[in-house]
Amino acid sequence: MEFPPLAVSLGDPAGVGPELIAEAWARREAEELPPFFVAGGADILRSAARTRGRELPVIEIFHPAEALELFGHALPVLAGADGLCTPGQPSREGAELALASLTEATELVCAGEAAALVTAPIAKARLAEVGFDHPGQTEFVAAACSYAPGDAVMMLAGPQLRTVPLTVHVALKDVPGLITPALIQRKARIVASALYRDFGIASPRLAVAALNPHAGEDGRMGREDIDIVAPTIAALAAEGIAITGPHAADGLFTAHARESYDVALCMYHDQALIPLKALAFDNGVNVTLGLPVVRTSPDHGTAFAIAGQNLANPGATIAAIRMAGECAARRLGLLDD
Amino acid sequence: MEFPPLAVSLGDPAGVGPELIAEAWARREAEELPPFFVAGGADILRSAARTRGRELPVIEIFHPAEALELFGHALPVLAGADGLCTPGQPSREGAELALASLTEATELVCAGEAAALVTAPIAKARLAEVGFDHPGQTEFVAAACSYAPGDAVMMLAGPQLRTVPLTVHVALKDVPGLITPALIQRKARIVASALYRDFGIASPRLAVAALNPHAGEDGRMGREDIDIVAPTIAALAAEGIAITGPHAADGLFTAHARESYDVALCMYHDQALIPLKALAFDNGVNVTLGLPVVRTSPDHGTAFAIAGQNLANPGATIAAIRMAGECAARRLGLLDD
Repeated sequence: MEFPPLAVSLGDPAGVGPELIAEAWARREAEELPPFFVAGGADILRSAARTRGRELPVIEIFHPAEALELFGHALPVLAGADGLCTPGQPSREGAELALASLTEATELVCAGEAAALVTAPIAKARLAEVGFDHPGQTEFVAAACSYAPGDAVMMLAGPQLRTVPLTVHVALKDVPGLITPALIQRKARIVASALYRDFGIASPRLAVAALNPHAGEDGRMGREDIDIVAPTIAALAAEGIAITGPHAADGLFTAHARESYDVALCMYHDQALIPLKALAFDNGVNVTLGLPVVRTSPDHGTAFAIAGQNLANPGATIAAIRMAGECAARRLGLLDD
Repeated sequence: MEFPPLAVSLGDPAGVGPELIAEAWARREAEELPPFFVAGGADILRSAARTRGRELPVIEIFHPAEALELFGHALPVLAGADGLCTPGQPSREGAELALASLTEATELVCAGEAAALVTAPIAKARLAEVGFDHPGQTEFVAAACSYAPGDAVMMLAGPQLRTVPLTVHVALKDVPGLITPALIQRKARIVASALYRDFGIASPRLAVAALNPHAGEDGRMGREDIDIVAPTIAALAAEGIAITGPHAADGLFTAHARESYDVALCMYHDQALIPLKALAFDNGVNVTLGLPVVRTSPDHGTAFAIAGQNLANPGATIAAIRMAGECAARRLGLLDD
């Protein structure tokens, strides 16, 4: 069976996305990356590569399948939207280009012409100005698959840890009210089946972090862990999911504790992202679970402040491309674990 | 000038405290530990050492100063409370012994007969049953110094990171309401002066973690960081304290970000302890700042489940003893930085 190439979206052309894509292509052999193409932006990519001292051979293609043969010799870029931009200076034209690239790459993955989607970082507020009406790229991809936003689960994956925030972009004061049995159940089930389907873990072990310090210490510091989290975990365990908790969150990310689970389900954004970023040395990946398509992204932003200065680390982009290829291969039955 | 020995409290005798104290003494030369004595528990310590395959030479003393000469050859233990206990099986007698040891060690430090206090872990709920009416050992020591509980600031210190939780043992839902300008100011001032006095950092750099994800993203995810935290930081900076923030908490603990500050002030327990424990490999220290006496503690609990099995790691106890000695020496003007 032919394995289609991966589709990579350009990200905001004034950010670090294009230079890191160029860098990843340049290291394709050492890093053993699967073939990929970029949706648009040939001139942007050439120019971004030059800021890192590289002359990037770019070849325009008109269909994803062409990328397979060409990838070894040049970076395949779909003919289409392009432009010029100054690194570090985001513009409306740049936002339009980023949106066009994301839209095309997503459509090709949904149509099965690309094996998986890797999205470079965008500036959400700028994309909103040109008509993007989703909280983030995750929800955009879910909508393109005709899935509800809640069906897509964001997982952060580093070399030493995987975490899932059960709530994401909300004020801390709103978190306790959002932690419901329905939310925990829905996300835990998606995570358990995705770790099996996409990551080849036969019986994934889920550990749930407590909302309150020391898991509330018998209710003296909040009752949510006792009243809501614990019974929901018990119900999920009764379904056959290997899930434990609520665990005191401060002890859940030590080197020793990390050996006891495959993914930590966290109650809020910072609980999931603090340990991941503290431990992941520039190579954290944001993976979308639960959708009919595989999508990954480097776990960092546009980093306008350092774009075009040969400072950005390509580790996360390389890890995102590799992970997308592996997850897609597992879904196609091409990887045995 | 004579440097008095450190006073070490026994901790719960059924926990890992005694065996780790014995282990620290056995490694005193390799670890270059300052002289210390234990307040009571000679039999407990001998017995605990045997669970780690060590024959511990213990010598009873009647005054702290005797420890200085004897420390090289035997572990000095103040004659007094003692007993026998089974590791892993906490008892009322054990709690009474732990409280007696803590009380005596604290009194000797307050009286200037010991240079600093190192407390081994206790089980708070069990101590409460024998009359201990403080939230923890930190508040007990503050009270012994006739200080208010809020004058003692808990700092967690690992080899790669120092953090201070501004709120500690409270439910997550109560955290946003407790973050006030007065709280931030009071603790920031104590931290800034303690890092100078006890840690020899001439101009300590304080970084404040935001309460909300992405520091609230211009108020879209909570206004506390804009309305309360940011102006308080500005006021403290105007006083001459090198303080920055509020910083998005998920990015504040990366290897790169950690280079930019000496201590991170965090809004709640898990925000401070998750990164510390994720990064500190069994050698985190809990230091009490702001009191007239120096007090440290290993950053772990009684660990009843592994007591007496030669499994507990002495790294944090050794680090706590070393740090107590260094901080006390700086206060006495015996260390130049």
